[in-house]
Amino acid sequence: MKLWQKDIQALKEVEVFTVGKDREMDMYLAPFDVIGSLAHIQMLESVGLLPKDDLKKLQSALKEIYRDIQAGNFKLDAQVEDIHSQVELLLTQKLGDAGKKIHSARSRNDQVLVDIKLFLRSEIELLVKSIFSLFELLQAQSEKYKNHLYPGYTHLQLAMPSSFGLWFGAYAESLVDDVTTLKAAFDVVNRNPLGSAAGYGSSFPINRRMTTELLGFASLNYNVVYAQMGRGKAERIVAQALANVADTLARLSMDMTLYLNQNFSFVSFPAELTTGSSIMPHKKNPDVFELIRSYCNRIKALPNEISMMTTNLPSGYHRDLQLLKEHLFPAFKTLKDCIDMAGLMLSHIEIKEDLLKDEKYKYLFTVDLVNQLVMQGVPFRDAYVQVGRSVEDGTYQAPEQLEVKNPHEGSIYNLCNAEIRELMEQAIAVFEFEKIHQAINKLLQD
Amino acid sequence: MKLWQKDIQALKEVEVFTVGKDREMDMYLAPFDVIGSLAHIQMLESVGLLPKDDLKKLQSALKEIYRDIQAGNFKLDAQVEDIHSQVELLLTQKLGDAGKKIHSARSRNDQVLVDIKLFLRSEIELLVKSIFSLFELLQAQSEKYKNHLYPGYTHLQLAMPSSFGLWFGAYAESLVDDVTTLKAAFDVVNRNPLGSAAGYGSSFPINRRMTTELLGFASLNYNVVYAQMGRGKAERIVAQALANVADTLARLSMDMTLYLNQNFSFVSFPAELTTGSSIMPHKKNPDVFELIRSYCNRIKALPNEISMMTTNLPSGYHRDLQLLKEHLFPAFKTLKDCIDMAGLMLSHIEIKEDLLKDEKYKYLFTVDLVNQLVMQGVPFRDAYVQVGRSVEDGTYQAPEQLEVKNPHEGSIYNLCNAEIRELMEQAIAVFEFEKIHQAINKLLQD
Amino acid sequence: MKLWQKDIQALKEVEVFTVGKDREMDMYLAPFDVIGSLAHIQMLESVGLLPKDDLKKLQSALKEIYRDIQAGNFKLDAQVEDIHSQVELLLTQKLGDAGKKIHSARSRNDQVLVDIKLFLRSEIELLVKSIFSLFELLQAQSEKYKNHLYPGYTHLQLAMPSSFGLWFGAYAESLVDDVTTLKAAFDVVNRNPLGSAAGYGSSFPINRRMTTELLGFASLNYNVVYAQMGRGKAERIVAQALANVADTLARLSMDMTLYLNQNFSFVSFPAELTTGSSIMPHKKNPDVFELIRSYCNRIKALPNEISMMTTNLPSGYHRDLQLLKEHLFPAFKTLKDCIDMAGLMLSHIEIKEDLLKDEKYKYLFTVDLVNQLVMQGVPFRDAYVQVGRSVEDGTYQAPEQLEVKNPHEGSIYNLCNAEIRELMEQAIAVFEFEKIHQAINKLLQD
Amino acid sequence: MKLWQKDIQALKEVEVFTVGKDREMDMYLAPFDVIGSLAHIQMLESVGLLPKDDLKKLQSALKEIYRDIQAGNFKLDAQVEDIHSQVELLLTQKLGDAGKKIHSARSRNDQVLVDIKLFLRSEIELLVKSIFSLFELLQAQSEKYKNHLYPGYTHLQLAMPSSFGLWFGAYAESLVDDVTTLKAAFDVVNRNPLGSAAGYGSSFPINRRMTTELLGFASLNYNVVYAQMGRGKAERIVAQALANVADTLARLSMDMTLYLNQNFSFVSFPAELTTGSSIMPHKKNPDVFELIRSYCNRIKALPNEISMMTTNLPSGYHRDLQLLKEHLFPAFKTLKDCIDMAGLMLSHIEIKEDLLKDEKYKYLFTVDLVNQLVMQGVPFRDAYVQVGRSVEDGTYQAPEQLEVKNPHEGSIYNLCNAEIRELMEQAIAVFEFEKIHQAINKLLQD
Repeated sequence: MKLWQKDIQALKEVEVFTVGKDREMDMYLAPFDVIGSLAHIQMLESVGLLPKDDLKKLQSALKEIYRDIQAGNFKLDAQVEDIHSQVELLLTQKLGDAGKKIHSARSRNDQVLVDIKLFLRSEIELLVKSIFSLFELLQAQSEKYKNHLYPGYTHLQLAMPSSFGLWFGAYAESLVDDVTTLKAAFDVVNRNPLGSAAGYGSSFPINRRMTTELLGFASLNYNVVYAQMGRGKAERIVAQALANVADTLARLSMDMTLYLNQNFSFVSFPAELTTGSSIMPHKKNPDVFELIRSYCNRIKALPNEISMMTTNLPSGYHRDLQLLKEHLFPAFKTLKDCIDMAGLMLSHIEIKEDLLKDEKYKYLFTVDLVNQLVMQGVPFRDAYVQVGRSVEDGTYQAPEQLEVKNPHEGSIYNLCNAEIRELMEQAIAVFEFEKIHQAINKLLQD
Repeated sequence: MKLWQKDIQALKEVEVFTVGKDREMDMYLAPFDVIGSLAHIQMLESVGLLPKDDLKKLQSALKEIYRDIQAGNFKLDAQVEDIHSQVELLLTQKLGDAGKKIHSARSRNDQVLVDIKLFLRSEIELLVKSIFSLFELLQAQSEKYKNHLYPGYTHLQLAMPSSFGLWFGAYAESLVDDVTTLKAAFDVVNRNPLGSAAGYGSSFPINRRMTTELLGFASLNYNVVYAQMGRGKAERIVAQALANVADTLARLSMDMTLYLNQNFSFVSFPAELTTGSSIMPHKKNPDVFELIRSYCNRIKALPNEISMMTTNLPSGYHRDLQLLKEHLFPAFKTLKDCIDMAGLMLSHIEIKEDLLKDEKYKYLFTVDLVNQLVMQGVPFRDAYVQVGRSVEDGTYQAPEQLEVKNPHEGSIYNLCNAEIRELMEQAIAVFEFEKIHQAINKLLQD
Repeated sequence: MKLWQKDIQALKEVEVFTVGKDREMDMYLAPFDVIGSLAHIQMLESVGLLPKDDLKKLQSALKEIYRDIQAGNFKLDAQVEDIHSQVELLLTQKLGDAGKKIHSARSRNDQVLVDIKLFLRSEIELLVKSIFSLFELLQAQSEKYKNHLYPGYTHLQLAMPSSFGLWFGAYAESLVDDVTTLKAAFDVVNRNPLGSAAGYGSSFPINRRMTTELLGFASLNYNVVYAQMGRGKAERIVAQALANVADTLARLSMDMTLYLNQNFSFVSFPAELTTGSSIMPHKKNPDVFELIRSYCNRIKALPNEISMMTTNLPSGYHRDLQLLKEHLFPAFKTLKDCIDMAGLMLSHIEIKEDLLKDEKYKYLFTVDLVNQLVMQGVPFRDAYVQVGRSVEDGTYQAPEQLEVKNPHEGSIYNLCNAEIRELMEQAIAVFEFEKIHQAINKLLQD
Repeated sequence: MKLWQKDIQALKEVEVFTVGKDREMDMYLAPFDVIGSLAHIQMLESVGLLPKDDLKKLQSALKEIYRDIQAGNFKLDAQVEDIHSQVELLLTQKLGDAGKKIHSARSRNDQVLVDIKLFLRSEIELLVKSIFSLFELLQAQSEKYKNHLYPGYTHLQLAMPSSFGLWFGAYAESLVDDVTTLKAAFDVVNRNPLGSAAGYGSSFPINRRMTTELLGFASLNYNVVYAQMGRGKAERIVAQALANVADTLARLSMDMTLYLNQNFSFVSFPAELTTGSSIMPHKKNPDVFELIRSYCNRIKALPNEISMMTTNLPSGYHRDLQLLKEHLFPAFKTLKDCIDMAGLMLSHIEIKEDLLKDEKYKYLFTVDLVNQLVMQGVPFRDAYVQVGRSVEDGTYQAPEQLEVKNPHEGSIYNLCNAEIRELMEQAIAVFEFEKIHQAINKLLQD
């Protein structure tokens, strides 16, 4: 029997379809829902919409729920629709009618909005910290391997000498720019939508500036229509920033799979970190890097997916937005796992020494030789002809070691890792996470 | 005869294929190529790689070329490969061998890199200014139409009263967040790659900090491998920011096509700005908005396209990157045209008055009535039942006008446009365009 | 402690990361893994690589496992890595060493490949059947509502009369083309990769034509390198076809949310199928359609995601491919759920009668009036002027009913639903599912 | 002065914006517009809507225009809006009022629709022919290089022996599946929308079956609402098929850039086809392959772009659709150029012999050695241990040549190129291009 021949009054299928994975997604939001409510009720009391007594009781009960969530003792009951209802249920079970008052002057829509923003803000912070750890590792490895020269390629063709000092340092610096785009996403997220109700505000005399301060937001999403429009937009902009981090990791992983390939053989890893084969001793499959690459490339497709799901929706809430959570929320953990795994691999990397002594790399130095002649006063064209001729007649010899005086910024012998670290520190300092911690701690303290 | 049966030594086709549209794209870069060279030669002289005499002559000749470019008198000769060669050709025609020295201690790769960054930086500035004009218009219209109420929808269903004050104000505020993401793109772009040569630096004792300062960059792309890796990455991040602006415009346009539709009929436009039909007097096709929407949705697909073209390329330059220019470079003009057209339309919009007096909108006020009862002390559930009953028994009447005391921030009667303008001014101030102008003007002045 | 400071010899994290959700995904493949093995061992026996005795025992045991899977009694043990190992474990527990022989002359890679192809083939069949049900419903509704005229829009502006007969019929015909693209995906999938081993074949004298026939494949993926290259490609092409179906459903849903909007009010649905509000009696939120639209728009982004994850991977297997299962496999159920839900909604739709009698639609008939005058012999320009003038001077009157003689194919009064059904039947007939059923049934029968 | 401060009655900018590149795009459609008109007027005459005399004159004049187009002597006059107007202008200049009659019972919308479908159908045919040329080349090279073994990789790690016979053959077979998806796109395109007018049909008694036959379409887009809905949908489905071909070429190019890399050094190309450097003799930059890869990856992003531009547009024509031409129309030439260039490169490839004699590849044969022992009757586990031990104790030696009896289908010694060619011929035969040629020739003949 087809679904549409059944008795529609008793259809479980519709509910199953519309709820989807939303209960699962709500678990990501649980602690933030409580935090949002703590700010909301304190404001309600201040404008006379909640008796002081009720406030005290609600605060105490909400903090208990928060502790339960942190301890992993919170779950959605089977018959409860969503996180907001579950919190309300717990409160009314404990406090009776007072429990229902946390919803005064608020709608489901702006509650979800503020939960999502608090969640995204918190996840971005965790991600930035994770990125900084990897950054430090990359910089440490850059210093450690700064004298490990290896071939630099253009067009995948041998070009000029490079070094693992440069290679590690490059990915470290890449993370600086990634953090810069995360900061923009953070700024978009770090504005308070609470009070926008269903997207058109309400006639209650609420104080939105107060909740903004209580929740540590940098400002309001002032316009309530825009606050609602932020749903989907915040997700897309955050996903763009995740995609930037992911791209750095994916490209790093591509390099690694290439350098581990036996034709390159620049690096190796302990057997525990690769997959081998007892009869093919050359086999060191870089599964971890391949999966980092794959996860990260998937994250790179996420902003487009969010765009596709929200394109050409007129302004105002649509149920479509519910599904944006499903791929974005778990992406934070995926990305942090990828960062952890990349760190694990790179902290155990073994890099071959004296790679450039291999005969096939000898022409890498031709450009530098020409330059050195130029520096000694030989006109460029003459220097070029002179080196070119030595290549042709077979007299060319690669230099043992290039002597570079006053090496320029960012080159093999002048990596500027300290300067890059300074850039990173500045990039992170502007997040001002501490302010937020203070606000949230104040809300949660007894 | 198939291409591959021809004499390969005389193949024009290969050149045509590899050059593609690059000469056309190079015209976007022309002024920036000259600016980059001006900084480069001044630095070369300072480190002893260029005689003072040559510097003077080159500066003078380059400035003349710059003026020709600005005056529209510059073009790529048919046999000249690219912008860099054209500039060099002009210089050598005028100055002989000295003309060739602008390429000392530089490679094509880092010349293109710095050109692209200067171009993107300049385009972002123009875009920000264009956005600010639209922002001001939207805010002015928000104030003008703040008492024009109309139905707010959720799920495309009538929900609660909204206003065109809110509607215009929402899109104005949306642009603030868009500018924030443009700033991150700007920061990624505003770092100097010059000196990275083919992506592995050089043995010349160049002074990259000096060119950084001369070109008004906020800092270096220190690591030369990362500087090269920035190709493709800068384009993607800029495209993400363009996509955010585009999304705001596309959504605004979707609303407009809907509101102009005869079933809604909230707004109208002068006949000159719509496409009509003499026998279908109702026809006012919103072609301009439809094309804004379409252009903008195409721009929204651009970051994904750039990602697709660069995904899984190992580090180091690849010729693939050449093609990234073709859709990104013209996108700036497209987006600015869309902004101009949106401004044109919205400055001539006519908005119906007293829209909410229509009988079909009467239930929009039920929520507000409940809230008012609550504010008068009626318990929420009782208020809800009372209003619900009046709806059921037909006694419900929509209020003439809602009286809202202490309307909250961002709601119909408290739009907070001044506060939003402050956010925008802060968002723009941090670009510090003036610093850049000073640097570039200094380079170009006689 | 950071992950990378731990003892790498005891790292659970690496395994957790590399396994990911693959065990969960393997459950989709379970029945097909058994089917693939049944074909493989029968072939092995035929070429002398498996004793006849072992074949019998293995067949009997595999069929038992198959029945367990069908009955829902099969699961992956906690310590077992994947579906293939689980099947082997069950066989060796029962049959000892004979159990291991199902892997002779085969590798994990080609086992996964054949499993995926059999799974995709089966899912496409289920999907086609589901589509056909919806097609029949749409056609039935088209006939039922063929006299329900309503406004046709261009540019979202009122244009000419349309009908719900046309509307339903259009989406029915859209599904015909969608099935055509599903057939191409089916053809790409319906080729046998078994025997390609790790992507380079093997030195075993296996008979790949025989397994092709046993598994009901239309042909082989002959070239073993291509067989392996099919991983990722088959997924992408199938996702493209799903995206086409999804686009039809998403657009249909967009129309429905619009037509249910109170400004249009063309259709309504029983309260059980929409979400309402007791104090906003106009509220009939079309949540089901909004979620169909959102799920389907997400599926439309899937081919791009798969492309992103596989772009620029050199030929040969990469672990990246593992993750392609995670979004594609569940998409079949999602899409079928969307079809079911669309069917449920549309089978209960209520459509307003006499919609075109509304004054605001009267000009819809101007074009038809001109045409009628032309048919009566009035030159087009004169007819046009005549009707235009009547509009201008207010004498224009919409006709009660248009009389259309010899209505052309596909127009309001000549829907051609029978012809469209014929197209659909042809589009489905070419799948030749029956042949496949016969092959699989033969493999599974006792 | 801002655009929106100008006098709107004299705005050129609006026209420039709305016309965009459409006149340029129209030139792609010119011949098809004439063909469509030839079919339309013949039908008009048959149903009495056009005098026989006018038909003759119009046919003759249209054929002359067609010849002008083919000869390159056709252009859009500056003041003429589009191709349809230009054709009408030419006809009225020559025939007076009779010239206007080609538009009877037709609207701009369905004229564009039929033009696009005829254009896409024609381009698909040209593409299929181009693909077949490359297919034949790949197969010829596969046979030529069937004994050129080289390492096969999994995870980019050395795995087992492969051959260039397999490599070329794999890409040939890949094109077969690509053609299969092109056929589905062709089928979607090969249906006649003519007569659907503005998307709601007309009251004229036109004969749509007749134009279907005259234009060689396989069937009608029956339902007129669906015919209009096909705009955007046909483009997307065609773009998906192009993306599949592009993916094959991009992956092939990725392999080539890798194999040309000096660490692999499997292949080389004549100097004329790569970009070198006089002082870096190793430099053989594969610019052609890099650009093929880049162009093709861009084409792979095209279906997503089209989806983004059409997502959530309600049914009925929207001006948005105009812009879909701009990236899709030129993509056919780009893709054919890529095919030509790939053919050029691959027809001049030089492949190293005896690659596997290199010591570093010796372990490639371990799996085959185990298999051979198994074939000689040694139990698998014993064979595995025996070979593994020889590897460990250093006694392992790679075999000079593997002796493979009864090599299986699609493996190194049994490439099945003939069978693959048969698949390709079947895949192409079903297009039935000849039928179409006959129809079109009949329309165009004097």
